[in-house]
Amino acid sequence: MKRVVIIGIGFGGIRAARELAGQGLEVVLVDRNNYHLFQPLLYQVATAGLEQESIAYPIRAMSRHWTGTRFHLAEVRAVDFAACKVLTSHGEIGYDYLVVAAGSVTNFFGLDSVERHAYDLKKLADAERLRNQILTAFERAVVEPDPAKRRALMTFVIVGGGPTGVEFSGALIELVRYVLAKDYPELSVQAARVVLIEAFDRLMAAMPEQLQSYTLNKLRSMGVEVLLNARVTDAGPERVVLHDGAVIPAHTLFWSAGVKAAPLAGSLGVGLKPGGRVPVGADLSLSGHPEVFIVGDMAWLEQDGVPLPMVAPVAMQMGTYAGKAIKLREQNLPVPPFRYHDKGSMATIGKSAAVAMTHGMKLKGYPAWIAWLLLHLYYLIGFRNRVVVMLNWIWYYWFHERQVRLITDQDGTR
Amino acid sequence: MKRVVIIGIGFGGIRAARELAGQGLEVVLVDRNNYHLFQPLLYQVATAGLEQESIAYPIRAMSRHWTGTRFHLAEVRAVDFAACKVLTSHGEIGYDYLVVAAGSVTNFFGLDSVERHAYDLKKLADAERLRNQILTAFERAVVEPDPAKRRALMTFVIVGGGPTGVEFSGALIELVRYVLAKDYPELSVQAARVVLIEAFDRLMAAMPEQLQSYTLNKLRSMGVEVLLNARVTDAGPERVVLHDGAVIPAHTLFWSAGVKAAPLAGSLGVGLKPGGRVPVGADLSLSGHPEVFIVGDMAWLEQDGVPLPMVAPVAMQMGTYAGKAIKLREQNLPVPPFRYHDKGSMATIGKSAAVAMTHGMKLKGYPAWIAWLLLHLYYLIGFRNRVVVMLNWIWYYWFHERQVRLITDQDGTR
Repeated sequence: MKRVVIIGIGFGGIRAARELAGQGLEVVLVDRNNYHLFQPLLYQVATAGLEQESIAYPIRAMSRHWTGTRFHLAEVRAVDFAACKVLTSHGEIGYDYLVVAAGSVTNFFGLDSVERHAYDLKKLADAERLRNQILTAFERAVVEPDPAKRRALMTFVIVGGGPTGVEFSGALIELVRYVLAKDYPELSVQAARVVLIEAFDRLMAAMPEQLQSYTLNKLRSMGVEVLLNARVTDAGPERVVLHDGAVIPAHTLFWSAGVKAAPLAGSLGVGLKPGGRVPVGADLSLSGHPEVFIVGDMAWLEQDGVPLPMVAPVAMQMGTYAGKAIKLREQNLPVPPFRYHDKGSMATIGKSAAVAMTHGMKLKGYPAWIAWLLLHLYYLIGFRNRVVVMLNWIWYYWFHERQVRLITDQDGTR
Repeated sequence: MKRVVIIGIGFGGIRAARELAGQGLEVVLVDRNNYHLFQPLLYQVATAGLEQESIAYPIRAMSRHWTGTRFHLAEVRAVDFAACKVLTSHGEIGYDYLVVAAGSVTNFFGLDSVERHAYDLKKLADAERLRNQILTAFERAVVEPDPAKRRALMTFVIVGGGPTGVEFSGALIELVRYVLAKDYPELSVQAARVVLIEAFDRLMAAMPEQLQSYTLNKLRSMGVEVLLNARVTDAGPERVVLHDGAVIPAHTLFWSAGVKAAPLAGSLGVGLKPGGRVPVGADLSLSGHPEVFIVGDMAWLEQDGVPLPMVAPVAMQMGTYAGKAIKLREQNLPVPPFRYHDKGSMATIGKSAAVAMTHGMKLKGYPAWIAWLLLHLYYLIGFRNRVVVMLNWIWYYWFHERQVRLITDQDGTR
């Protein structure tokens, strides 16, 4: 029986696995975590809106229903293309076909001080860490007598005006104004600052102008300070420095200004494209290795002259395609080239406020928000997770209450 | 306005705070965590049945409804009785009345090697750590070629036949047989061992004999190996040694054989009773310090010739009493002595199986299990938490599925 190894069970890997299960192939799933993570909702875990368990789903809970599939918990160190072997932290696995879907990591663009001090949101633990940081900052502010230091503790700088930065800014200002304001009557909540910094002259660069300005105005009306045409160049534990030398005293810096391919891309022995991405052929295969497919954020493929974006829908379509391509190959049928169908994009700004763009339609405000909620519930894996997430959302909508505001540092106090 | 400081917001502290809120006193709650933890369900978090957030409740979510109450996140280092001051990791707090309710920690009775290698369940992080350990052991067993080593990975030794040991053993064997058996078709689940070790000749020492033997028979029928009259004397990362020299190869050792008063008791400058507990007067006050009350696991009080047990109901009643006593003092009214009213005890063994004893009634099996479920939901704080917990229980009951089987180590793989 031929063996397919899939590296990374994110949006791409999961769809490749679904295609290949029960097709007379042995499928081995490899991931360093034992769960699939629904990254688009990490920001809600970080802002105390959801429990971390509700956006993760055990891989074995899926794979046990997938005939011929098994799971291997390990970190992939390298791929030996000559010997057709994946080298992992827990042994080697030979393959006949390989799907590499290891995703991306945060790109700090060489800003070392920023990388050292900034928080990001790629892993489940990142979200818990960021939530602890936000809540701890408020606890420290309560007992801080110096008003300037208190303000710095209550200042949150977010870099990157894409969907993650926008969604996190909105969720954070709502956490502060609706929930923490009641928790900390001793603090003047007006003193808290949420500052969103974007290098270009607009937010949500991929959206039509009308939705960009809606996003900007909505965030500002909610109390977020949006700085356009601004870049962060340096950071310390208690301050953020901008390109023009301006200093924002802030204890919390969140970075969502870019991603780059997972480091595994660099160990594949091929020349990389911008963002450390791996150039692939029209069928997503690696040059000279038709049995190896690269899907998702790691893959560099140009369509109509522009590279495909590093977003979940691309990864999903690529994953499904790779699974189908392997099946076609096995049947000695021709494999048509991959083509990405852009179904649109969306982002939530706050309660009853979102922007969405699909099939030429532009939605904003309440209808976009409802569409966002339904689509995210639909794509979330696991019925129980959906119920728990929906319950939390209803709770928040009716009671303005986010109950997961727990500081879960292992050592308790700091 | 007179100030009451309450150290520790567990079962005792929370009830003292409720009594004192809105009574014209300033109440300061001090805890090293920003949440109240429902310790009786920690074992369900450790066995992948509940998300950790569902058994914790933010203290500020309560205190914001309590007039005159504020919360101070800090660890208490010592109490200066002469100056009437609590010394914390984040400053000093003067008091007119003090309620010390810092609870207990695990008692390893001086067995250093056990303390180093055993898991226990007192803090939220303990439960997550133990869950990670159990699931990681199975992941390592899948790739372990040596049958003896594989068996040691799948062997779990639990020390202490009280409620915690019994509940954890039952929940663990059910996790293995109902859930993990489906997750790991490669492994022979019959090879997994759950070994419960009790030093005396019976489990659940505080229960009537009929319920003790029901518990023993039920656990054995579920597949738990129960060793009575046995003691653990030594432990290593891959083995547990008994008093007679017998060695059990096991990677996971869980210790629930005893508790002792929190270390704060030792810094109060008074002579301690067995278990490091602080002797208190009939009104729970510290000898020579009528303004200081010790409640819960820390307090040593004999009633009818025996010391009160270190259990949640005692702490709750003591907390309520201390709050009332302070109010009576403020009104210059006499304070009647504390008296504990034992309403019974209970423990769940497995699905549809529990033991309960209340007002002379003995319940076992399904009725006891239903009583256990309802009582735990009732005492759990926060309506949302109750809904989430109930949802998880229904899920497990109907689908034999525990979805929180996530390995959430910060570093992913080990």
